[in-house]
Amino acid sequence: MTSASPARADSRADLPRLGLRNFWYPAAKSSQVGRKPLAVKLLGEEIMLLRESGELHALHNRCPHRGIPLTAGKRHFPGTISCMYHGWTFNMQGECVEALNEGPDSQLPGKVRVRSYPVQEINGIAWIYMGDGAPSPIAEQVPAEVLDTRNIVHCQTEVWNCSWMPAVENLMDSHDVFVHRSSIFFLFRKLPCWMNVAATELPDGKGVDFKYSKMGPVQDTYKRVGRWPRHGWWRQTKINSPKPGEYPTTELRLPCVVRVGFATLMFVRYMVPVDENHVRAFLLTSRHAPGLSGITYRLYYHLWASWSLLKYFIGQDRVVFETQDYWAPERLASTDVGLVKWRRLVATVAKKEAADRQTVQAGTNRVTEQAEALADL
Amino acid sequence: MTSASPARADSRADLPRLGLRNFWYPAAKSSQVGRKPLAVKLLGEEIMLLRESGELHALHNRCPHRGIPLTAGKRHFPGTISCMYHGWTFNMQGECVEALNEGPDSQLPGKVRVRSYPVQEINGIAWIYMGDGAPSPIAEQVPAEVLDTRNIVHCQTEVWNCSWMPAVENLMDSHDVFVHRSSIFFLFRKLPCWMNVAATELPDGKGVDFKYSKMGPVQDTYKRVGRWPRHGWWRQTKINSPKPGEYPTTELRLPCVVRVGFATLMFVRYMVPVDENHVRAFLLTSRHAPGLSGITYRLYYHLWASWSLLKYFIGQDRVVFETQDYWAPERLASTDVGLVKWRRLVATVAKKEAADRQTVQAGTNRVTEQAEALADL
Amino acid sequence: MTSASPARADSRADLPRLGLRNFWYPAAKSSQVGRKPLAVKLLGEEIMLLRESGELHALHNRCPHRGIPLTAGKRHFPGTISCMYHGWTFNMQGECVEALNEGPDSQLPGKVRVRSYPVQEINGIAWIYMGDGAPSPIAEQVPAEVLDTRNIVHCQTEVWNCSWMPAVENLMDSHDVFVHRSSIFFLFRKLPCWMNVAATELPDGKGVDFKYSKMGPVQDTYKRVGRWPRHGWWRQTKINSPKPGEYPTTELRLPCVVRVGFATLMFVRYMVPVDENHVRAFLLTSRHAPGLSGITYRLYYHLWASWSLLKYFIGQDRVVFETQDYWAPERLASTDVGLVKWRRLVATVAKKEAADRQTVQAGTNRVTEQAEALADL
Repeated sequence: MTSASPARADSRADLPRLGLRNFWYPAAKSSQVGRKPLAVKLLGEEIMLLRESGELHALHNRCPHRGIPLTAGKRHFPGTISCMYHGWTFNMQGECVEALNEGPDSQLPGKVRVRSYPVQEINGIAWIYMGDGAPSPIAEQVPAEVLDTRNIVHCQTEVWNCSWMPAVENLMDSHDVFVHRSSIFFLFRKLPCWMNVAATELPDGKGVDFKYSKMGPVQDTYKRVGRWPRHGWWRQTKINSPKPGEYPTTELRLPCVVRVGFATLMFVRYMVPVDENHVRAFLLTSRHAPGLSGITYRLYYHLWASWSLLKYFIGQDRVVFETQDYWAPERLASTDVGLVKWRRLVATVAKKEAADRQTVQAGTNRVTEQAEALADL
Repeated sequence: MTSASPARADSRADLPRLGLRNFWYPAAKSSQVGRKPLAVKLLGEEIMLLRESGELHALHNRCPHRGIPLTAGKRHFPGTISCMYHGWTFNMQGECVEALNEGPDSQLPGKVRVRSYPVQEINGIAWIYMGDGAPSPIAEQVPAEVLDTRNIVHCQTEVWNCSWMPAVENLMDSHDVFVHRSSIFFLFRKLPCWMNVAATELPDGKGVDFKYSKMGPVQDTYKRVGRWPRHGWWRQTKINSPKPGEYPTTELRLPCVVRVGFATLMFVRYMVPVDENHVRAFLLTSRHAPGLSGITYRLYYHLWASWSLLKYFIGQDRVVFETQDYWAPERLASTDVGLVKWRRLVATVAKKEAADRQTVQAGTNRVTEQAEALADL
Repeated sequence: MTSASPARADSRADLPRLGLRNFWYPAAKSSQVGRKPLAVKLLGEEIMLLRESGELHALHNRCPHRGIPLTAGKRHFPGTISCMYHGWTFNMQGECVEALNEGPDSQLPGKVRVRSYPVQEINGIAWIYMGDGAPSPIAEQVPAEVLDTRNIVHCQTEVWNCSWMPAVENLMDSHDVFVHRSSIFFLFRKLPCWMNVAATELPDGKGVDFKYSKMGPVQDTYKRVGRWPRHGWWRQTKINSPKPGEYPTTELRLPCVVRVGFATLMFVRYMVPVDENHVRAFLLTSRHAPGLSGITYRLYYHLWASWSLLKYFIGQDRVVFETQDYWAPERLASTDVGLVKWRRLVATVAKKEAADRQTVQAGTNRVTEQAEALADL
């Protein structure tokens, strides 16, 4: 369903449909993970999250023996989980410490393992690294405001029926004027009726910064159709929409982050790929609000922002993504300048990851051979 | 699942699974289409139907920008529809007349368009042409009786769970004896128990004419199983089934028309492909009944024909098509002579269409290249 | 999804996903098949079972003419079934005896047939042979105890959402210790906590015999996790689990039979492929219990075994199979020695069947050519 043009490649073709790999992603809210294992799907892979002595762990959710989800297993011994089928028992690092069915003299312990993933638990969010090789420090990849433990960080999650790609591609592309016009947020504000978009790669090379370089008036006259919006006297209030430069932050960040700051409140939306057709939205908000201001802010969040912004406003975006045929032929225009730069950045990183992964897998094959020879009787 | 025979090609293989293209098709009943856009799927494509100042229009139902269905858009200005995502505004010819999000100085108008389709509204039915090039006059393709505005034309539509191909392939192939034996229409008639089929291509080359060249008695004796039907005294009435020659018309017509005339009443069934596994049946009836006879005919239609013939009788065919495994190996026999001629005709037209389409698409590619270069920033 | 190792083939790759062909399979319980045709799917094929004068018959469930299921047809004449679409009438051997729609002089009878399958009805079970060529005597393929008419044979059937392959691959692989630990059967018995598996091909080459060559105690001490099971005082009863050698029979038999004998009671589980993702389990039990002991045994079966063993105990296996991702990478170990031998046996037989089938199909093609030439008008 890509463009038929032989002269130019479709810029969607180089995007990784299951997401970039070598990044920290939110996997769940801390409160969802306890001693009872939790099964989640991320970047197309089955993951088990569970807690041991208060600490979080993540393992690949299939016993390497016969393909049973480890989340269906039992936790017979401290610090382990045992497969429901034959009792192969893994510690929190994914090492098989006992194959109960083979008895105390089993030769399997130390020779079999299930992949474990680095996890960190910060401000009520479980972060996971599913990439190749050792992870970068999380502070290099995750926005500071959601890691800063002095901040008040809230998190809502939803699974949307769309790919992760469209779900980050609409930042500051002028869609607000149309998609969010009827939102409570914009209803009584002076919403400009058109805007020009400017985008520049971030200095650290990890994202794209968006600005509205020019904004139209609340109502304008178009040659062929006349005045638009046709009606809007109720928007002629004194509450202005932010002017260019008033947003301290409007960025897309690797791997899938929509980061929007407004005064001292930061909205950080992670669109985590589940599979090619589903994305798990982590809607994070962060604010530094010490002492009594924290109480006020929590009231603001729970009574206002959590539904007017996160449910209703972001819900309008969700309707668009779930209606869109992302793979239909597309024709990008001037307001998509940031989108184009974002895609180029993602494609470059994806290409590098793919090249690195080939090296890693060559090594993996040798391990597999040894393991299978051992299992052969 | 096609026949394994290397010596003969399977005659189904050359049929177009999404239908022939260069023909007028019924798209909807007029009454379904208003100012609010209607989304329909025809020949595998998404179409938007809508009405402007009483006149009907049809556009491809995807905004060329980012793949949003235009039917989800809003009609801000007379004679236009605006995409819900970024306000690209198209007139009824599919031309982008304003890109609202880019402001009054946008360069997009005149450079972007969505495909529009010729439509005509006749006798309460919306007809569409989705083929390549300019359409033939509708009167050359659609049976005269459904276009004649002096006639009373009724229309019922249903979507069936089968391909369009089997849904036209059973005309006059002797299935009536078995499928419709229990119908109210045949229950008290002298239904022959077998028949021979003769078929000839129509003089205009646009279809196949079917006749029963010979009909058996109401009950006959078969060597190996005895008398059949086994019981049927209640059929020994004086109401005869039509004899050979009494049907003025029994035709299959391009692109997917089952046309059966009985005295002065014409049944014209269009089996319009939706996708490979669904067909939208347009069950049309037409009669010239001026003056008072029109009242009588309307009573006959609504009180009798609309359910006994269109719901019940045609419903028996529908059960067959939805039960049939069309792609199972088949063994055609003497009563399929018309089916074979029909398939050959369709395959010939499909082959010609495919050849013509290649020429058209070579041209389209050049247009796409120019448009993409323009969008590139 | 197979192992990435280039050095060793994945032993699952050579298994036939729709089962071995040249074997007798149970198709239904006798009580399910009457004069009204029964549609079943076996080994990926649609089959019609029906009864004529008390005798069982099986035909391929598609009319060779236009792909209608014969089970939708009518039984107008003794010993025949007629297709609902055009009245082609087949006898119980699958021969077209009349094409009612072509009249008494039709040339089709004797030239068209639908495939019929050998069937036998023994002890309340309908057996079918869907293989190539003439079947072996059923007594050479089906365990004697389910054919012996002096025995009391019961049968339960269920369709499971898994392939047939995993559903036979867990016999005596030590999973009982984990999967069935909580079963009523094992709850108060001295269940060993681990075991070694030994397996040998059966002398007749038709299966694999399994033994536990060594069994651990009820509770044992593992170096890294301590005592296991952690609790189990209620198992310290005097009811022993059977010791090595006490099972007279624990076999996997071709084509898909799990055969377990316990004293004089035989459990014979046929896992009949439906399609690649479904299997129909025939849970057979057989016991020689003449005279009054038959009454006692029937009480035992209906009041105890039918639910505690067949529903509950086997139900625990079913949960495993339906949870398992059979095609995930696997790592076989010492307790899978029997599984490996079983797979090798199945793969060998499947390879031979495939070679034989090519010869048979070369012949079929010539028949098809003649039939199509005849149908060509």
